[in-house]
Amino acid sequence: MELLVVGSVAYDTYKTPFGSVKGAMGGAAVHAALAASRLTRGVAVAGVVGRDYRQADLDLLACQGIDVSGVAHAAGRTFRWTGKYAGDMAQAQTLKTELGVFAAFNPVLPKALASPKFLFLANIHPAVQASVLRQAGKPSFTLLDTMNYWIASQKPALLKVIRGVDGLIINDQEIRQLTGAGTLAAAAQKVLALGPKVLILKRGEHGASLHTRRGSFQVPAYPVDKVLDPTGAGDSFAGGFIGHLAHVKATDERRLREAMLYGTAMASFNVEDFSVRRVLKTARPAIESRVRGLKAMITL
Amino acid sequence: MELLVVGSVAYDTYKTPFGSVKGAMGGAAVHAALAASRLTRGVAVAGVVGRDYRQADLDLLACQGIDVSGVAHAAGRTFRWTGKYAGDMAQAQTLKTELGVFAAFNPVLPKALASPKFLFLANIHPAVQASVLRQAGKPSFTLLDTMNYWIASQKPALLKVIRGVDGLIINDQEIRQLTGAGTLAAAAQKVLALGPKVLILKRGEHGASLHTRRGSFQVPAYPVDKVLDPTGAGDSFAGGFIGHLAHVKATDERRLREAMLYGTAMASFNVEDFSVRRVLKTARPAIESRVRGLKAMITL
Repeated sequence: MELLVVGSVAYDTYKTPFGSVKGAMGGAAVHAALAASRLTRGVAVAGVVGRDYRQADLDLLACQGIDVSGVAHAAGRTFRWTGKYAGDMAQAQTLKTELGVFAAFNPVLPKALASPKFLFLANIHPAVQASVLRQAGKPSFTLLDTMNYWIASQKPALLKVIRGVDGLIINDQEIRQLTGAGTLAAAAQKVLALGPKVLILKRGEHGASLHTRRGSFQVPAYPVDKVLDPTGAGDSFAGGFIGHLAHVKATDERRLREAMLYGTAMASFNVEDFSVRRVLKTARPAIESRVRGLKAMITL
Repeated sequence: MELLVVGSVAYDTYKTPFGSVKGAMGGAAVHAALAASRLTRGVAVAGVVGRDYRQADLDLLACQGIDVSGVAHAAGRTFRWTGKYAGDMAQAQTLKTELGVFAAFNPVLPKALASPKFLFLANIHPAVQASVLRQAGKPSFTLLDTMNYWIASQKPALLKVIRGVDGLIINDQEIRQLTGAGTLAAAAQKVLALGPKVLILKRGEHGASLHTRRGSFQVPAYPVDKVLDPTGAGDSFAGGFIGHLAHVKATDERRLREAMLYGTAMASFNVEDFSVRRVLKTARPAIESRVRGLKAMITL
Protein backbone atom coordinates (compact mmCIF):
# COMPACT_ATOMS: atom_id res chain seq x y z
CA MET A 1 0.00 0.00 0.00
CA GLU A 2 1.36 3.39 -1.08
CA LEU A 3 -0.55 5.92 0.98
CA LEU A 4 -2.50 5.56 4.18
CA VAL A 5 -4.83 8.36 5.25
CA VAL A 6 -6.01 8.33 8.86
CA GLY A 7 -8.74 10.60 10.15
CA SER A 8 -12.40 11.38 10.32
CA VAL A 9 -15.06 9.81 8.14
CA ALA A 10 -18.14 11.93 8.60
CA TYR A 11 -21.52 13.09 7.44
CA ASP A 12 -21.78 16.84 7.09
CA THR A 13 -24.82 19.11 7.16
CA TYR A 14 -24.19 22.75 6.32
CA LYS A 15 -25.03 25.68 4.15
CA THR A 16 -23.00 28.21 2.28
CA PRO A 17 -24.34 31.32 0.52
CA PHE A 18 -24.67 29.09 -2.57
CA GLY A 19 -26.58 26.11 -1.30
CA SER A 20 -26.73 23.43 1.34
CA VAL A 21 -26.24 19.72 1.96
CA LYS A 22 -27.62 17.35 4.56
CA GLY A 23 -25.73 14.27 5.72
CA ALA A 24 -23.25 14.59 2.86
CA MET A 25 -20.02 12.62 2.63
CA GLY A 26 -17.29 14.39 4.50
CA GLY A 27 -14.54 14.01 7.02
CA ALA A 28 -10.88 14.88 6.60
CA ALA A 29 -9.82 11.34 5.69
CA VAL A 30 -12.48 11.06 3.00
CA HIS A 31 -11.61 14.38 1.38
CA ALA A 32 -7.87 13.67 1.51
CA ALA A 33 -8.12 10.08 0.28
CA LEU A 34 -10.39 11.03 -2.59
CA ALA A 35 -8.06 13.83 -3.70
CA ALA A 36 -5.07 11.49 -3.48
CA SER A 37 -6.93 8.78 -5.40
CA ARG A 38 -7.07 11.08 -8.45
CA LEU A 39 -3.27 11.06 -8.52
CA THR A 40 -2.02 7.69 -7.34
CA ARG A 41 -2.98 4.06 -6.88
CA GLY A 42 -2.77 2.28 -3.55
CA VAL A 43 -4.61 4.73 -1.31
CA ALA A 44 -6.14 3.37 1.90
CA VAL A 45 -8.24 4.99 4.62
CA ALA A 46 -8.29 4.21 8.33
CA GLY A 47 -11.21 5.60 10.25
CA VAL A 48 -14.37 4.62 12.04
CA VAL A 49 -18.03 4.78 11.08
CA GLY A 50 -21.26 4.00 12.88
CA ARG A 51 -24.17 1.80 11.95
CA ASP A 52 -25.75 4.66 10.04
CA TYR A 53 -22.93 4.90 7.50
CA ARG A 54 -24.25 3.94 4.11
CA GLN A 55 -22.61 0.96 2.45
CA ALA A 56 -23.07 2.76 -0.86
CA ASP A 57 -20.73 5.51 0.36
CA LEU A 58 -18.02 3.00 1.28
CA ASP A 59 -18.56 1.35 -2.10
CA LEU A 60 -18.11 4.71 -3.76
CA LEU A 61 -14.72 5.09 -2.10
CA ALA A 62 -13.73 1.52 -2.97
CA CYS A 63 -14.80 2.18 -6.53
CA GLN A 64 -12.16 4.95 -6.68
CA GLY A 65 -9.54 2.34 -5.85
CA ILE A 66 -9.45 3.32 -2.18
CA ASP A 67 -8.85 0.47 0.26
CA VAL A 68 -11.50 0.85 2.97
CA SER A 69 -10.49 -2.22 5.00
CA GLY A 70 -9.16 0.16 7.66
CA VAL A 71 -12.54 1.78 8.20
CA ALA A 72 -13.81 0.20 11.41
CA HIS A 73 -17.50 -0.27 12.06
CA ALA A 74 -18.64 0.53 15.58
CA ALA A 75 -21.93 0.51 17.41
CA GLY A 76 -23.27 4.04 17.44
CA ARG A 77 -23.57 6.91 15.03
CA THR A 78 -21.09 8.25 12.51
CA PHE A 79 -19.36 11.56 13.31
CA ARG A 80 -21.68 14.34 12.18
CA TRP A 81 -20.77 17.98 11.71
CA THR A 82 -23.34 20.73 11.28
CA GLY A 83 -22.24 24.20 10.32
CA LYS A 84 -22.55 27.17 8.05
CA TYR A 85 -20.50 29.65 6.10
CA ALA A 86 -21.28 33.30 5.56
CA GLY A 87 -19.73 36.22 3.72
CA ASP A 88 -16.43 35.31 2.10
CA MET A 89 -16.65 31.80 3.62
CA ALA A 90 -13.13 32.11 5.02
CA GLN A 91 -14.27 30.57 8.29
CA ALA A 92 -16.80 27.82 8.98
CA GLN A 93 -19.17 28.37 11.85
CA THR A 94 -19.84 25.14 13.71
CA LEU A 95 -23.44 24.75 14.84
CA LYS A 96 -23.22 21.20 16.16
CA THR A 97 -20.58 18.51 16.52
CA GLU A 98 -21.80 14.97 17.21
CA LEU A 99 -18.67 12.88 17.62
CA GLY A 100 -20.56 9.58 17.87
CA VAL A 101 -18.23 6.61 17.32
CA PHE A 102 -15.40 9.04 16.50
CA ALA A 103 -15.15 9.99 20.19
CA ALA A 104 -13.49 6.65 20.95
CA PHE A 105 -11.52 6.49 17.70
CA ASN A 106 -8.27 4.68 18.38
CA PRO A 107 -7.36 2.82 15.24
CA VAL A 108 -5.61 -0.52 15.22
CA LEU A 109 -4.17 -0.78 11.75
CA PRO A 110 -4.93 -4.03 9.92
CA LYS A 111 -1.72 -5.79 8.94
CA ALA A 112 -2.22 -4.94 5.28
CA LEU A 113 -2.20 -1.21 6.14
CA ALA A 114 0.57 -1.24 8.75
CA SER A 115 3.50 -0.45 6.46
CA PRO A 116 2.44 2.43 4.24
CA LYS A 117 5.12 4.18 2.19
CA PHE A 118 3.33 7.49 2.70
CA LEU A 119 1.17 8.40 5.65
CA PHE A 120 -1.20 11.32 6.14
CA LEU A 121 -2.38 11.88 9.69
CA ALA A 122 -5.39 14.11 9.25
CA ASN A 123 -6.68 16.35 12.03
CA ILE A 124 -7.46 14.17 15.08
CA HIS A 125 -6.32 14.04 18.71
CA PRO A 126 -2.49 14.19 18.77
CA ALA A 127 -2.35 11.10 20.98
CA VAL A 128 -4.26 9.14 18.34
CA GLN A 129 -1.91 10.48 15.67
CA ALA A 130 1.04 9.33 17.81
CA SER A 131 -0.49 5.88 18.22
CA VAL A 132 -0.92 5.49 14.45
CA LEU A 133 2.63 6.73 13.91
CA ARG A 134 3.91 3.97 16.23
CA GLN A 135 1.93 1.32 14.35
CA ALA A 136 2.87 2.49 10.88
CA GLY A 137 6.46 1.28 10.74
CA LYS A 138 8.79 3.54 8.80
CA PRO A 139 6.93 5.37 6.05
CA SER A 140 9.20 7.30 3.70
CA PHE A 141 7.10 10.39 4.37
CA THR A 142 4.58 11.27 7.07
CA LEU A 143 2.44 14.39 6.93
CA LEU A 144 0.47 15.72 9.89
CA ASP A 145 -2.48 18.09 10.06
CA THR A 146 -3.94 19.61 13.22
CA MET A 147 -6.24 22.45 14.29
CA ASN A 148 -6.59 25.32 16.75
CA TYR A 149 -8.52 23.13 19.23
CA TRP A 150 -5.56 20.74 19.73
CA ILE A 151 -3.02 23.56 19.76
CA ALA A 152 -4.93 25.15 22.64
CA SER A 153 -5.81 22.02 24.61
CA GLN A 154 -3.13 19.41 23.82
CA LYS A 155 -0.01 21.39 23.07
CA PRO A 156 2.56 19.09 24.73
CA ALA A 157 1.14 15.97 23.05
CA LEU A 158 0.92 17.84 19.78
CA LEU A 159 4.51 19.08 19.93
CA LYS A 160 5.62 15.54 20.66
CA VAL A 161 3.91 14.06 17.61
CA ILE A 162 5.08 16.99 15.45
CA ARG A 163 8.66 16.05 16.36
CA GLY A 164 8.09 12.59 14.90
CA VAL A 165 6.74 13.51 11.45
CA ASP A 166 8.39 14.65 8.25
CA GLY A 167 5.87 17.31 7.38
CA LEU A 168 3.34 19.57 9.07
CA ILE A 169 0.43 21.14 7.20
CA ILE A 170 -1.29 24.00 8.97
CA ASN A 171 -2.95 27.33 8.24
CA ASP A 172 -1.71 30.82 8.95
CA GLN A 173 -3.78 31.35 12.09
CA GLU A 174 -2.81 27.98 13.50
CA ILE A 175 0.90 28.48 13.00
CA ARG A 176 0.73 31.82 14.83
CA GLN A 177 -1.11 30.12 17.67
CA LEU A 178 1.39 27.25 17.71
CA THR A 179 4.57 29.32 17.61
CA GLY A 180 3.58 32.73 18.94
CA ALA A 181 5.71 34.26 16.18
CA GLY A 182 4.83 37.65 14.76
CA THR A 183 5.53 37.00 11.11
CA LEU A 184 4.71 33.90 9.09
CA ALA A 185 8.35 33.68 8.02
CA ALA A 186 9.52 33.59 11.64
CA ALA A 187 6.77 31.11 12.51
CA ALA A 188 7.90 28.85 9.68
CA GLN A 189 11.46 28.84 11.01
CA LYS A 190 10.20 27.92 14.46
CA VAL A 191 8.28 24.93 13.11
CA LEU A 192 11.30 23.69 11.17
CA ALA A 193 13.28 23.91 14.40
CA LEU A 194 10.71 21.67 16.11
CA GLY A 195 11.54 18.66 13.98
CA PRO A 196 9.67 18.45 10.67
CA LYS A 197 11.76 18.91 7.54
CA VAL A 198 8.75 20.18 5.63
CA LEU A 199 6.14 22.78 6.51
CA ILE A 200 3.13 23.58 4.38
CA LEU A 201 1.37 26.77 5.24
CA LYS A 202 -2.19 27.06 3.91
CA ARG A 203 -3.20 30.67 3.30
CA GLY A 204 -6.70 30.21 1.90
CA GLU A 205 -7.34 32.40 -1.09
CA HIS A 206 -3.76 33.69 -0.86
CA GLY A 207 -2.44 30.25 -1.77
CA ALA A 208 0.02 28.15 0.13
CA SER A 209 3.71 28.03 0.85
CA LEU A 210 6.23 25.28 1.35
CA HIS A 211 9.07 25.74 3.80
CA THR A 212 12.08 23.46 4.06
CA ARG A 213 15.67 23.94 5.13
CA ARG A 214 16.40 24.62 1.46
CA GLY A 215 14.12 27.66 1.37
CA SER A 216 10.52 28.46 0.69
CA PHE A 217 8.23 28.15 -2.30
CA GLN A 218 4.93 29.91 -2.77
CA VAL A 219 1.96 28.90 -4.89
CA PRO A 220 -1.11 31.06 -5.49
CA ALA A 221 -4.60 29.70 -5.07
CA TYR A 222 -5.98 28.51 -8.38
CA PRO A 223 -8.54 31.13 -9.46
CA VAL A 224 -11.82 29.26 -9.76
CA ASP A 225 -14.87 31.00 -11.18
CA LYS A 226 -17.02 30.33 -8.16
CA VAL A 227 -16.27 28.99 -4.70
CA LEU A 228 -19.43 27.09 -3.73
CA ASP A 229 -18.19 25.21 -0.69
CA PRO A 230 -14.79 25.38 1.02
CA THR A 231 -15.43 22.34 3.24
CA GLY A 232 -12.57 19.90 2.91
CA ALA A 233 -10.38 22.17 0.78
CA GLY A 234 -7.45 21.86 3.20
CA ASP A 235 -7.80 18.08 3.26
CA SER A 236 -8.01 17.93 -0.51
CA PHE A 237 -4.85 20.01 -0.60
CA ALA A 238 -3.09 17.59 1.73
CA GLY A 239 -4.39 14.61 -0.25
CA GLY A 240 -3.26 16.11 -3.53
CA PHE A 241 0.13 17.00 -2.07
CA ILE A 242 0.94 13.61 -0.60
CA GLY A 243 -0.87 11.81 -3.41
CA HIS A 244 1.56 13.33 -5.88
CA LEU A 245 4.56 12.34 -3.76
CA ALA A 246 3.22 8.79 -3.48
CA HIS A 247 2.69 8.71 -7.24
CA VAL A 248 6.24 9.82 -8.11
CA LYS A 249 7.70 7.91 -5.14
CA ALA A 250 10.02 10.77 -4.21
CA THR A 251 10.24 13.60 -1.72
CA ASP A 252 13.16 15.70 -2.94
CA GLU A 253 12.80 19.48 -3.00
CA ARG A 254 11.75 19.56 -6.63
CA ARG A 255 9.02 16.97 -6.03
CA LEU A 256 7.83 18.72 -2.89
CA ARG A 257 7.44 21.93 -4.88
CA GLU A 258 5.59 20.10 -7.64
CA ALA A 259 3.36 18.51 -5.01
CA MET A 260 2.33 22.01 -3.87
CA LEU A 261 0.86 22.56 -7.33
CA TYR A 262 -1.08 19.29 -7.18
CA GLY A 263 -2.35 20.09 -3.71
CA THR A 264 -3.48 23.51 -4.90
CA ALA A 265 -5.20 22.02 -7.94
CA MET A 266 -7.09 19.45 -5.86
CA ALA A 267 -8.19 22.12 -3.37
CA SER A 268 -9.47 24.21 -6.28
CA PHE A 269 -11.65 21.36 -7.54
CA ASN A 270 -12.86 20.70 -4.01
CA VAL A 271 -14.36 24.17 -3.61
CA GLU A 272 -16.22 24.16 -6.92
CA ASP A 273 -19.06 22.02 -5.66
CA PHE A 274 -20.49 20.72 -2.40
CA SER A 275 -19.07 17.81 -0.44
CA VAL A 276 -16.95 15.47 -2.57
CA ARG A 277 -18.92 15.97 -5.79
CA ARG A 278 -16.39 17.83 -7.88
CA VAL A 279 -13.31 15.89 -6.78
CA LEU A 280 -15.10 12.63 -7.61
CA LYS A 281 -15.55 13.82 -11.19
CA THR A 282 -11.98 15.04 -11.61
CA ALA A 283 -9.71 13.21 -14.02
CA ARG A 284 -5.99 13.54 -14.71
CA PRO A 285 -6.20 15.87 -17.76
CA ALA A 286 -8.15 18.52 -15.82
CA ILE A 287 -5.66 18.29 -12.97
CA GLU A 288 -2.67 18.67 -15.28
CA SER A 289 -4.35 21.63 -16.93
CA ARG A 290 -4.64 23.43 -13.59
CA VAL A 291 -1.07 22.53 -12.66
CA ARG A 292 0.05 24.12 -15.93
CA GLY A 293 -2.08 27.17 -15.15
CA LEU A 294 -0.46 27.48 -11.74
CA LYS A 295 3.02 27.20 -13.24
CA ALA A 296 2.17 30.07 -15.57
CA MET A 297 1.18 32.14 -12.53
CA ILE A 298 4.65 31.83 -11.03
CA THR A 299 6.74 31.98 -14.18
CA LEU A 300 8.40 35.23 -15.08
CA MET B 1 12.19 63.11 -16.65
CA GLU B 2 11.52 59.41 -16.43
CA LEU B 3 9.15 59.01 -13.52
CA LEU B 4 6.91 61.48 -11.77
CA VAL B 5 5.45 60.58 -8.38
CA VAL B 6 2.54 62.70 -7.16
CA GLY B 7 1.15 62.48 -3.65
CA SER B 8 1.59 63.32 -0.02
CA VAL B 9 4.79 64.61 1.55
CA ALA B 10 4.31 64.27 5.28
CA TYR B 11 5.70 64.10 8.77
CA ASP B 12 4.65 61.01 10.65
CA THR B 13 4.44 60.34 14.38
CA TYR B 14 3.65 56.79 15.40
CA LYS B 15 4.65 53.77 17.37
CA THR B 16 4.87 50.08 16.58
CA PRO B 17 5.58 47.28 19.08
CA PHE B 18 9.26 47.81 18.24
CA GLY B 19 9.74 51.53 18.66
CA SER B 20 8.45 54.93 17.72
CA VAL B 21 9.19 58.03 15.67
CA LYS B 22 8.12 61.63 15.96
CA GLY B 23 7.80 63.93 12.96
CA ALA B 24 9.64 61.46 10.74
CA MET B 25 9.82 61.73 6.96
CA GLY B 26 6.82 60.10 5.42
CA GLY B 27 4.04 60.51 2.91
CA ALA B 28 3.21 58.23 0.01
CA ALA B 29 5.11 60.28 -2.55
CA VAL B 30 8.28 60.30 -0.44
CA HIS B 31 8.23 56.55 0.18
CA ALA B 32 7.48 55.77 -3.46
CA ALA B 33 10.01 58.21 -4.91
CA LEU B 34 12.76 56.99 -2.59
CA ALA B 35 12.12 53.36 -3.49
CA ALA B 36 12.08 54.22 -7.20
CA SER B 37 15.28 56.24 -6.83
CA ARG B 38 17.15 53.05 -5.85
CA LEU B 39 16.30 51.60 -9.26
CA THR B 40 16.24 54.38 -11.82
CA ARG B 41 17.44 57.88 -12.55
CA GLY B 42 15.13 60.75 -13.35
CA VAL B 43 12.62 60.48 -10.52
CA ALA B 44 10.66 63.60 -9.58
CA VAL B 45 8.12 64.34 -6.87
CA ALA B 46 5.13 66.65 -7.00
CA GLY B 47 3.58 67.51 -3.66
CA VAL B 48 3.14 70.30 -1.20
CA VAL B 49 4.81 71.13 2.10
CA GLY B 50 4.28 73.78 4.74
CA ARG B 51 6.65 76.25 6.29
CA ASP B 52 7.64 73.66 8.88
CA TYR B 53 9.13 71.24 6.35
CA ARG B 54 12.85 71.00 6.94
CA GLN B 55 15.07 72.04 4.05
CA ALA B 56 17.43 69.26 5.09
CA ASP B 57 14.75 66.71 4.30
CA LEU B 58 14.23 68.12 0.82
CA ASP B 59 18.00 68.16 0.39
CA LEU B 60 18.11 64.51 1.41
CA LEU B 61 15.64 63.66 -1.36
CA ALA B 62 17.55 65.78 -3.88
CA CYS B 63 20.72 64.04 -2.81
CA GLN B 64 19.18 60.73 -3.94
CA GLY B 65 18.80 62.23 -7.40
CA ILE B 66 15.13 63.06 -6.86
CA ASP B 67 13.89 66.22 -8.55
CA VAL B 68 11.97 68.15 -5.88
CA SER B 69 11.10 71.15 -8.06
CA GLY B 70 7.49 69.93 -8.05
CA VAL B 71 7.20 70.16 -4.28
CA ALA B 72 5.25 73.37 -3.71
CA HIS B 73 5.74 75.45 -0.57
CA ALA B 74 2.57 76.82 0.97
CA ALA B 75 1.73 78.90 3.99
CA GLY B 76 0.68 76.56 6.78
CA ARG B 77 1.80 73.27 8.19
CA THR B 78 2.93 70.11 6.45
CA PHE B 79 0.53 67.15 6.43
CA ARG B 80 1.03 65.26 9.69
CA TRP B 81 -0.18 61.75 10.48
CA THR B 82 -0.22 60.31 13.97
CA GLY B 83 -0.95 56.65 14.51
CA LYS B 84 0.02 53.36 16.00
CA TYR B 85 0.30 49.69 15.18
CA ALA B 86 -0.43 46.78 17.49
CA GLY B 87 -0.31 43.00 17.29
CA ASP B 88 0.71 41.77 13.86
CA MET B 89 0.76 45.37 12.58
CA ALA B 90 -1.46 44.43 9.65
CA GLN B 91 -3.50 47.58 10.13
CA ALA B 92 -2.46 51.07 11.20
CA GLN B 93 -4.66 52.82 13.70
CA THR B 94 -4.92 56.53 12.94
CA LEU B 95 -4.91 58.72 16.03
CA LYS B 96 -4.79 62.08 14.31
CA THR B 97 -4.72 63.43 10.77
CA GLU B 98 -3.68 67.05 10.32
CA LEU B 99 -3.99 67.76 6.61
CA GLY B 100 -2.48 71.23 6.84
CA VAL B 101 -1.41 72.51 3.42
CA PHE B 102 -2.30 69.12 1.93
CA ALA B 103 -6.01 69.91 2.30
CA ALA B 104 -5.79 72.33 -0.62
CA PHE B 105 -3.30 70.25 -2.63
CA ASN B 106 -3.99 70.80 -6.30
CA PRO B 107 -0.70 70.52 -8.10
CA VAL B 108 0.17 72.55 -11.15
CA LEU B 109 3.01 70.65 -12.73
CA PRO B 110 6.07 72.73 -13.60
CA LYS B 111 6.86 72.50 -17.31
CA ALA B 112 9.91 70.33 -16.65
CA LEU B 113 7.69 67.72 -14.97
CA ALA B 114 4.70 67.89 -17.31
CA SER B 115 5.73 65.08 -19.68
CA PRO B 116 6.85 62.15 -17.56
CA LYS B 117 7.38 58.82 -19.30
CA PHE B 118 6.09 57.05 -16.17
CA LEU B 119 3.61 58.46 -13.69
CA PHE B 120 2.63 57.21 -10.25
CA LEU B 121 -0.46 58.82 -8.78
CA ALA B 122 -0.19 57.95 -5.10
CA ASN B 123 -3.20 57.89 -2.82
CA ILE B 124 -4.90 61.33 -2.96
CA HIS B 125 -8.36 62.64 -3.84
CA PRO B 126 -9.40 61.10 -7.18
CA ALA B 127 -10.23 64.53 -8.57
CA VAL B 128 -6.65 65.65 -7.89
CA GLN B 129 -5.37 62.48 -9.52
CA ALA B 130 -7.54 63.25 -12.56
CA SER B 131 -6.21 66.80 -12.71
CA VAL B 132 -2.59 65.57 -12.71
CA LEU B 133 -3.45 62.98 -15.34
CA ARG B 134 -4.77 65.76 -17.61
CA GLN B 135 -1.59 67.83 -17.11
CA ALA B 136 0.83 64.96 -17.60
CA GLY B 137 0.55 64.52 -21.38
CA LYS B 138 0.85 60.93 -22.53
CA PRO B 139 3.04 58.90 -20.17
CA SER B 140 3.83 55.42 -21.46
CA PHE B 141 2.55 54.01 -18.17
CA THR B 142 0.42 55.48 -15.39
CA LEU B 143 -0.14 53.71 -12.10
CA LEU B 144 -2.80 54.71 -9.58
CA ASP B 145 -3.14 54.01 -5.89
CA THR B 146 -6.19 54.75 -3.75
CA MET B 147 -7.68 53.84 -0.38
CA ASN B 148 -10.89 52.74 1.36
CA TYR B 149 -11.80 56.35 2.19
CA TRP B 150 -12.04 57.39 -1.47
CA ILE B 151 -13.76 54.17 -2.48
CA ALA B 152 -16.47 54.91 0.08
CA SER B 153 -16.82 58.65 -0.43
CA GLN B 154 -15.76 59.38 -4.04
CA LYS B 155 -16.59 56.26 -5.97
CA PRO B 156 -17.84 57.91 -9.21
CA ALA B 157 -14.79 60.21 -9.42
CA LEU B 158 -12.53 57.30 -8.55
CA LEU B 159 -14.01 54.99 -11.20
CA LYS B 160 -13.57 57.77 -13.74
CA VAL B 161 -9.87 58.23 -13.02
CA ILE B 162 -9.36 54.44 -12.87
CA ARG B 163 -10.68 54.25 -16.42
CA GLY B 164 -7.92 56.61 -17.55
CA VAL B 165 -4.87 54.85 -16.11
CA ASP B 166 -2.84 51.84 -17.23
CA GLY B 167 -2.49 50.24 -13.83
CA LEU B 168 -4.25 50.15 -10.47
CA ILE B 169 -2.47 49.15 -7.26
CA ILE B 170 -4.73 48.28 -4.35
CA ASN B 171 -4.95 45.89 -1.42
CA ASP B 172 -7.24 42.92 -0.94
CA GLN B 173 -9.73 44.70 1.31
CA GLU B 174 -9.93 47.69 -1.00
CA ILE B 175 -10.58 45.63 -4.11
CA ARG B 176 -13.45 43.83 -2.38
CA GLN B 177 -14.88 47.20 -1.36
CA LEU B 178 -14.43 48.59 -4.87
CA THR B 179 -15.90 45.66 -6.80
CA GLY B 180 -18.15 43.87 -4.31
CA ALA B 181 -16.80 40.58 -5.66
CA GLY B 182 -16.62 37.53 -3.42
CA THR B 183 -13.27 36.16 -4.51
CA LEU B 184 -10.09 38.07 -5.26
CA ALA B 185 -9.93 36.37 -8.67
CA ALA B 186 -13.41 37.63 -9.57
CA ALA B 187 -12.57 41.07 -8.18
CA ALA B 188 -9.46 41.19 -10.35
CA GLN B 189 -11.49 40.44 -13.47
CA LYS B 190 -13.91 43.23 -12.57
CA VAL B 191 -11.09 45.76 -12.27
CA LEU B 192 -9.61 44.74 -15.62
CA ALA B 193 -13.06 45.25 -17.13
CA LEU B 194 -13.12 48.82 -15.74
CA GLY B 195 -10.26 49.98 -17.95
CA PRO B 196 -6.78 49.36 -16.53
CA LYS B 197 -4.66 46.79 -18.35
CA VAL B 198 -2.73 46.05 -15.19
CA LEU B 199 -3.88 45.34 -11.66
CA ILE B 200 -1.55 44.88 -8.73
CA LEU B 201 -3.12 43.35 -5.67
CA LYS B 202 -1.18 43.87 -2.44
CA ARG B 203 -1.79 41.07 0.05
CA GLY B 204 0.48 42.15 2.90
CA GLU B 205 2.48 39.27 4.30
CA HIS B 206 0.91 36.95 1.71
CA GLY B 207 2.72 38.82 -1.06
CA ALA B 208 1.23 40.46 -4.11
CA SER B 209 -0.25 39.46 -7.42
CA LEU B 210 -0.26 40.96 -10.88
CA HIS B 211 -3.30 40.61 -13.09
CA THR B 212 -3.39 41.43 -16.78
CA ARG B 213 -5.40 40.16 -19.72
CA ARG B 214 -2.55 37.66 -20.24
CA GLY B 215 -3.11 36.03 -16.86
CA SER B 216 -1.92 36.45 -13.33
CA PHE B 217 1.40 36.23 -11.54
CA GLN B 218 1.96 35.86 -7.84
CA VAL B 219 4.95 36.84 -5.75
CA PRO B 220 5.42 36.00 -2.07
CA ALA B 221 6.41 38.62 0.44
CA TYR B 222 10.16 38.61 0.98
CA PRO B 223 10.73 36.97 4.38
CA VAL B 224 12.51 39.59 6.46
CA ASP B 225 13.84 38.71 9.89
CA LYS B 226 11.92 41.41 11.65
CA VAL B 227 9.18 43.77 10.58
CA LEU B 228 9.82 46.94 12.59
CA ASP B 229 7.50 49.34 10.80
CA PRO B 230 5.09 48.69 7.93
CA THR B 231 4.44 52.41 7.26
CA GLY B 232 4.97 53.15 3.58
CA ALA B 233 5.47 49.52 2.53
CA GLY B 234 2.74 49.74 -0.09
CA ASP B 235 4.20 52.96 -1.47
CA SER B 236 7.69 51.46 -1.53
CA PHE B 237 6.20 48.53 -3.43
CA ALA B 238 4.63 50.89 -5.97
CA GLY B 239 7.84 52.89 -6.25
CA GLY B 240 9.92 49.75 -6.76
CA PHE B 241 7.45 48.42 -9.31
CA ILE B 242 7.24 51.52 -11.47
CA GLY B 243 10.88 52.39 -10.80
CA HIS B 244 11.93 49.13 -12.43
CA LEU B 245 9.67 49.75 -15.43
CA ALA B 246 11.12 53.25 -15.80
CA HIS B 247 14.63 51.82 -15.57
CA VAL B 248 14.13 49.19 -18.28
CA LYS B 249 11.84 51.50 -20.29
CA ALA B 250 9.36 48.73 -21.04
CA THR B 251 5.99 47.49 -19.83
CA ASP B 252 5.57 44.13 -21.56
CA GLU B 253 4.25 41.18 -19.56
CA ARG B 254 7.73 39.87 -18.75
CA ARG B 255 8.84 43.29 -17.46
CA LEU B 256 5.65 43.74 -15.46
CA ARG B 257 6.28 40.39 -13.76
CA GLU B 258 9.90 41.34 -13.07
CA ALA B 259 8.71 44.65 -11.67
CA MET B 260 6.60 42.73 -9.13
CA LEU B 261 9.83 41.29 -7.74
CA TYR B 262 11.42 44.73 -7.46
CA GLY B 263 8.32 46.14 -5.79
CA THR B 264 8.35 43.27 -3.32
CA ALA B 265 12.05 43.74 -2.61
CA MET B 266 11.65 47.47 -1.96
CA ALA B 267 8.68 46.87 0.35
CA SER B 268 10.78 44.36 2.29
CA PHE B 269 13.53 46.91 2.89
CA ASN B 270 10.92 49.49 3.86
CA VAL B 271 9.59 47.44 6.77
CA GLU B 272 13.00 46.65 8.25
CA ASP B 273 13.38 50.03 9.90
CA PHE B 274 11.33 53.08 10.76
CA SER B 275 10.33 55.77 8.29
CA VAL B 276 12.63 55.92 5.25
CA ARG B 277 15.79 54.81 7.06
CA ARG B 278 16.32 51.40 5.50
CA VAL B 279 15.34 52.31 1.95
CA LEU B 280 17.76 55.25 2.05
CA LYS B 281 20.61 52.85 2.78
CA THR B 282 19.65 50.31 0.14
CA ALA B 283 21.93 49.86 -2.84
CA ARG B 284 21.55 47.84 -6.03
CA PRO B 285 23.41 44.68 -4.96
CA ALA B 286 21.15 44.15 -1.93
CA ILE B 287 18.08 44.67 -4.10
CA GLU B 288 19.28 42.19 -6.73
CA SER B 289 20.01 39.69 -3.99
CA ARG B 290 16.41 39.85 -2.75
CA VAL B 291 15.06 39.65 -6.28
CA ARG B 292 17.10 36.47 -6.77
CA GLY B 293 15.75 35.16 -3.46
CA LEU B 294 12.20 35.82 -4.59
CA LYS B 295 12.80 34.06 -7.89
CA ALA B 296 14.00 31.01 -5.96
CA MET B 297 10.75 31.09 -3.99
CA ILE B 298 8.66 30.70 -7.14
CA THR B 299 10.90 28.35 -9.11
CA LEU B 300 10.06 24.65 -9.15
